[in-house]
Amino acid sequence: MPLTVRDLSESALLERIFPRLARAEAAVVGRGDDAAVLAAPDGRTVISIDTLVQDKDFRLLRENGFATTGYDVGWKCAAQNLSDINAMGARATSLLVSLTLPGETPVEWVEALADGLTDAIEQLGATGCGVIGGDLGGGTEIVVTAAVTGTLEGRAPVLRSGARPGDVVALAGTAGRAAAGLALLESGTDIEDLGEEELGLIATQCRPEPPLEAGPEAARAGARAMLDISDGLIRDAGRIATASSVAIDFDPEALSELARPLRTAGRLLGKSPLEWVLGGGEDHGLLAVFGPEITLPPRFTAVGSVSAGTPRVTVGSQAPASIGWDHFAH
Amino acid sequence: MPLTVRDLSESALLERIFPRLARAEAAVVGRGDDAAVLAAPDGRTVISIDTLVQDKDFRLLRENGFATTGYDVGWKCAAQNLSDINAMGARATSLLVSLTLPGETPVEWVEALADGLTDAIEQLGATGCGVIGGDLGGGTEIVVTAAVTGTLEGRAPVLRSGARPGDVVALAGTAGRAAAGLALLESGTDIEDLGEEELGLIATQCRPEPPLEAGPEAARAGARAMLDISDGLIRDAGRIATASSVAIDFDPEALSELARPLRTAGRLLGKSPLEWVLGGGEDHGLLAVFGPEITLPPRFTAVGSVSAGTPRVTVGSQAPASIGWDHFAH
Repeated sequence: MPLTVRDLSESALLERIFPRLARAEAAVVGRGDDAAVLAAPDGRTVISIDTLVQDKDFRLLRENGFATTGYDVGWKCAAQNLSDINAMGARATSLLVSLTLPGETPVEWVEALADGLTDAIEQLGATGCGVIGGDLGGGTEIVVTAAVTGTLEGRAPVLRSGARPGDVVALAGTAGRAAAGLALLESGTDIEDLGEEELGLIATQCRPEPPLEAGPEAARAGARAMLDISDGLIRDAGRIATASSVAIDFDPEALSELARPLRTAGRLLGKSPLEWVLGGGEDHGLLAVFGPEITLPPRFTAVGSVSAGTPRVTVGSQAPASIGWDHFAH
Repeated sequence: MPLTVRDLSESALLERIFPRLARAEAAVVGRGDDAAVLAAPDGRTVISIDTLVQDKDFRLLRENGFATTGYDVGWKCAAQNLSDINAMGARATSLLVSLTLPGETPVEWVEALADGLTDAIEQLGATGCGVIGGDLGGGTEIVVTAAVTGTLEGRAPVLRSGARPGDVVALAGTAGRAAAGLALLESGTDIEDLGEEELGLIATQCRPEPPLEAGPEAARAGARAMLDISDGLIRDAGRIATASSVAIDFDPEALSELARPLRTAGRLLGKSPLEWVLGGGEDHGLLAVFGPEITLPPRFTAVGSVSAGTPRVTVGSQAPASIGWDHFAH
């Protein structure tokens, strides 16, 4: 029998978690008081909150035997929160993590979650960021909520509302990989039968890698609008279109390029790779809009253009539905 | 059949929630982007996170027919988070609220939760504070997490570690009322049979009223240590004692005074009111330590004293156990 959460007091569990957590450089007062105090050198704090729920946002164990580890959940929690700060053109400074844990959760699983948080922060390049506070409690299912803070380092935040006709739409990071990975997991395909390319897609689903340098770089380069792709290119581009009152058209060639690494998985499952690119979230790529005169920052690739007109998103000037994309299916 | 969460899209549900939420004055960028941006005029942000879980921190319906309303949960969520900011001597500036909701949750319950958040912010006096962001998702039980931010307005934060021998220990707000209210709810006593005094105790359990002016006032008056009482006088005083390396002794007369309004409930349930005062949390009163030369701010009453010695908490120089307090029972 593994040691479980109910075998330990709250303070004993915290003693096992704390040493595994990265320290936040911006902490004026760290963990252990009623609240933490965070430096905000430019007089502003960027802040967001995001939750992962067992059997909704991750499955502990799938029918094909694939187990989501605590490490994966910790990594994903950090990644998706850090991505929200990135999408404002800011640099993450701290996380506060609230864990709701059933008594039967193995302590090892929780320790792995702490390791996943720390490794995501370090390996994704969120230098100086750390866990500054948290909360621990019981429940019937695992719920992991993180609040994340960031600093704009004196820059203006990059909102969704600044796109103008004539602008270039560009992507940093990937699109559709996490959705293809999820489809592979849900297909019940035996993990043993998958090749390296497919395992890579599953890895993107479990441990997404938002391009954390790209957000501040885009802001410095003068990006006029930006968000992180969490619900798919079409939906998320639609949010920029609506907020900016512009039309966005994607370049079919660029989308084909994004779909290329998903072809084998598509053949295996009998699915269209383009569907994953258009509708899949969770890679946490950055979609940014730049003026036509701007040289795109190194991590960005042009994928579309902005024009005047009723807010809408098209692909090669065609409605997504006409190329087989059904938004109700996503 | 009431309208439930699963009958509405996420955006339709948000449209019902947003108009009910107070706006944060410190919002540079408010809701609707990847993250919010909060003003931090003195270059620091105080921050904390706290979670309420159905059937752990609140029961939707008790055997005696007492239903915890969405309003109560919203109020309590705001109150306990605002209290953490208060306990640092700071003023709350914003909340971010993440809701995990089963599909069968009535939309009315969620709307009432939003009203409870807003009313707590306003009626407890957290002027200028509002809900600056959030997250919405599904689960099998209701989980409400809030992150809260605050500003020190240029003051030093009041930590737990500054108490010195000779200092006075003082309390703002109440102690033991919420615990007595919970005991009444758990006793199965018919609500109809309870008098106004007992209903008042239940109200403190469901809608605690942390004294939000008292934290900044204590900081301005020079409080050397402070925390909010969430686990009872003995345990929470023990945290100051440990962090400050001092001994704390409570004045039995002052504790009797705190127990007085709990006597009827104690008689009804055959319990000692003093137990509730010593071991009960959730009133979110403030326990602060002042130098002996300080005139206590108006909301504070002296309840004990600090002396040199091994960190410990006594009542009239006696160990709490010797007066019948069993910390394992709490």
